[in-house]
This record gives sequence, C-alpha cells and structure tokens, in this order.
Amino acid sequence: MSGSLAVVGLGPGDPDWITPETTAILAAAEEVLGYGPYLARLGPPREGQRRHASDNREEIARARHALDLAATGRRVAVVSGGDPGVFAMASAVFEAMEDGDPAWRALDVTVHPGVTAVLAAAARVGAPLGHDFCVVSLSENLKPWDLVLRRLDAAVAGDFVLALYNVASRARPWQLGAAFDRLRQSGRTGGTPVVLAAAVGRADERIVRATLADVDPAMADMRTLVLVGSSRTRCLARPDGRPPFVYTPRRVDPE
Amino acid sequence: MSGSLAVVGLGPGDPDWITPETTAILAAAEEVLGYGPYLARLGPPREGQRRHASDNREEIARARHALDLAATGRRVAVVSGGDPGVFAMASAVFEAMEDGDPAWRALDVTVHPGVTAVLAAAARVGAPLGHDFCVVSLSENLKPWDLVLRRLDAAVAGDFVLALYNVASRARPWQLGAAFDRLRQSGRTGGTPVVLAAAVGRADERIVRATLADVDPAMADMRTLVLVGSSRTRCLARPDGRPPFVYTPRRVDPE
Repeated sequence: MSGSLAVVGLGPGDPDWITPETTAILAAAEEVLGYGPYLARLGPPREGQRRHASDNREEIARARHALDLAATGRRVAVVSGGDPGVFAMASAVFEAMEDGDPAWRALDVTVHPGVTAVLAAAARVGAPLGHDFCVVSLSENLKPWDLVLRRLDAAVAGDFVLALYNVASRARPWQLGAAFDRLRQSGRTGGTPVVLAAAVGRADERIVRATLADVDPAMADMRTLVLVGSSRTRCLARPDGRPPFVYTPRRVDPE
Repeated sequence: MSGSLAVVGLGPGDPDWITPETTAILAAAEEVLGYGPYLARLGPPREGQRRHASDNREEIARARHALDLAATGRRVAVVSGGDPGVFAMASAVFEAMEDGDPAWRALDVTVHPGVTAVLAAAARVGAPLGHDFCVVSLSENLKPWDLVLRRLDAAVAGDFVLALYNVASRARPWQLGAAFDRLRQSGRTGGTPVVLAAAVGRADERIVRATLADVDPAMADMRTLVLVGSSRTRCLARPDGRPPFVYTPRRVDPE
C-alpha cells in the first residue's frame, strides 16, 4: 500500500500559528478530513483535493474513513484544532487502527505537532505555565467523572498549575463549577489566579482574569480554555489600566 | 516609551515547526537576545538587526537586558527553544520586570506561543498524550528536589501521563534514574511505556522506546524529553520491523 495518512493540527485559531510543516502537508493532500468548522478555516481546496467534513462526535468514524482512503493509495490528511495529540484526532486514529483492518498497521501514518490551546491562552496573559503543570479534560463523555475528580485532587496535592480543556458545552453545563468547587475543597486558596481564555487567536477572543474565589463558571463555553494557578502563580500589576500579567516564577525556595 | 519586547519560541528543532507569527516578529526585530545555540538557528541577521548571545544560565540577566533595550525605544525579541512559556524565557522576563525598574511595567511586552518539546516528542511515537497529562521539570536548580518527588507522586496518584523536561545534564546525572525509581515505588507498573526522545526535529534525532522496568536513564542527555505512560498507555505493534505506535486511548471505562 502506497497511501499515507498525516494527522495535523491547525492551532487554536490564528492562522499565523499554523506551522509551515502542516501548511505543506495540507497543500499536498488529496483527501482532507475533519470537523466542519476546522475545514472551513482552510479556505477553498486546491484542484484535485477532496474535503470530507463530519461532526465533532464522529472521531472514530472519521478515523476509519481516513485509514480506508489511505489504504486505497490516497494521500490523506486528518485535521484537528490545536495540536492533534492533545484531546484530538491522533488517539482516535490509533484506536481505529487497533480495532480495524490489520493491513492498516502497515500504512505510513504520521502525526505532526501544532500549537495546543493552553500555550496560546498562557501566552495571552503572561507566563502562567512557567512551572510544572497538568492538563485535564473535564469531559466525562469518555471517562468517569470520578477520575476527573481524582486528577483534580492530584493536581492540588502536587501544587501544579492546571489547564482545563473541554470545560463546558450545552450538554455539559455543570462540570466547570464542580471542578472549581473541588479545587477549593482540596485546598487551593481563593486568591489563586484563574484565567478564562475563549476563542484565543480569533476575532472574538475574550480573556477573563479572575480568582478561584470569584470566578463565574457560567462565563465559559465550549471554546474556553481555563487556567488555574498553583500556590506560586502571581499577578503583576501594570499602570494605565493595562491588565496585569499572570505568571508563575521558575524558582521555588525550600520551605 | 515606544519600545516593545516580544518573547518567542523556535520549537524543538525542525525549522518547519516555527510559526509564521514568530518568523515575522524575528524579521522585524531590531535587537534579538537568546542562548547562543538558539540564535545560531536563525541564520544571519538582516541589516540593522543586532544579536545578543548569552549562556543558558543567564536568563534573568538576559531578561533585564531585553527590558532595558525596549525601554530605550527599541523593538526587541527574546528567543527560547520550544514554547517560550514552558520552562523558558517568558517567566524570566516577568521575574525581571517585577524586581526591576517600575517603568518596565508600562512597556509593550507580549508572549507568542510555539511548539513545545513534549508535543513534538509525542507526535513522533504516536499519541501518548491522548489523555490527561502532567509536565514536570526535573531540574532542582530552581526548586527543591522534594517538590519534584511530591509532583511525581501526584502524577501517579492521578494516573496522569507524565512528560519530563530537563531530565539530565553533566551537572545533574542522577535525577532521571531517581525519578524512575520514585515512579516505580509509587506504583506505576514495570510494563508502562517510556519514551526517550532526543533532539526531536534535528538531524541527530533519536527516539528510544522502552518500559519503566527496563529503561536506562543513562541514555538521556540535556536534549532529551522523557514520556512515561499512564496505566492506559499502550503500544500498537506493526509489521515489517516498524516501531510500534505508543498511544493513550481517549476512553476510560468505569472500573
């Protein structure tokens, strides 16, 4: 089989965050598959390139379709937002491969890194990830909520900065508020800086700086990435009404 | 003051992973500061651009120099490897700002995301970050080793995939072995997939796939990123002598 499948990510929103590698792969692809709004970000296909849009709950079907096309010798690209390995299509492709046609394992399948949302959200406010951090998806579509809670507890126990993905949707309105409650109960203090970063890199980008005591989870939607500081994360005030920088120092002195 | 300071990252090594935003900032900068080997990756400066190379232990001095230049009205860029917010220059800039001339806080200081090493290392082997993960620096230059151990324990307690930065150097030869020991003692099993990814995206890239039982920490150096799977991370065998894919499924079924 001479086909190939490349799994790529478009970054969080700004086209200037798409890597040249990904741009070249998408230009060369004969078949491009992805969630409709991601494909819409690509502009019109070049002559001879086919696009296959699908819904965002259909990752496994999309992955199987992509593997099938590659197995017929086509040059295929699967598109994610952000980085394809972080809560995105790369795992879905390998799940489909493991459960599917054994011949798929001989295909030339590659994954290509991109800018994941937490990096862009962090950059917008300063350097909150300047020290060790955890990345957790709040979606319990694919894992039990108890495991989410266990991980939030571990993040507090380790005093990690915390980045939360998939914090809210119409079908999942309560998870973010419950996560904030759990973090407070586990001992993260009310003054901890919290950032809600929505649609980063797009025209309707909105950044909200708050604290764990006063943050309103209803301000988050499905395009919001949430950062919760560690005990060391701090705000650096600025003059002239500019928003503060939020950052985590590199140094932790012994207690 | 009309100067500006942009903090950017060059990604882990492949020039095709540098974002167009960062390329444009570097082209426009009048002063570019960074660790010598990073500046060497940029090619010769355009006419009128000055370069300032410094050692990799001099982050705060470099940050102060950059802020000083911006305060004189210059257009300044500070360069990191990877993403500038992950164990890199962005935090150093805000530390220098907090302790320095109050006028620096009024400067136009921006941070711009890049591809951090863990994303590139993960992509090379499949999708090990397909689920929740932690990022920990093993350097105890800036924090007590006890805090590193506390965070490794928390990563095991939360069953996170673990990405380890700054795992080894000539001055720090024992930390990675001690970290593996701690993970085993904390209950991560011997069969857990471990990946050592050195110089990802460069001509001398080297990827080693191992398990927590048999991994040799002496194979890591200062350019190595280490991934340790969660209890769910698996290897997907492939035919014809190809290396297995390492991936973490998205789904965790209730126990």
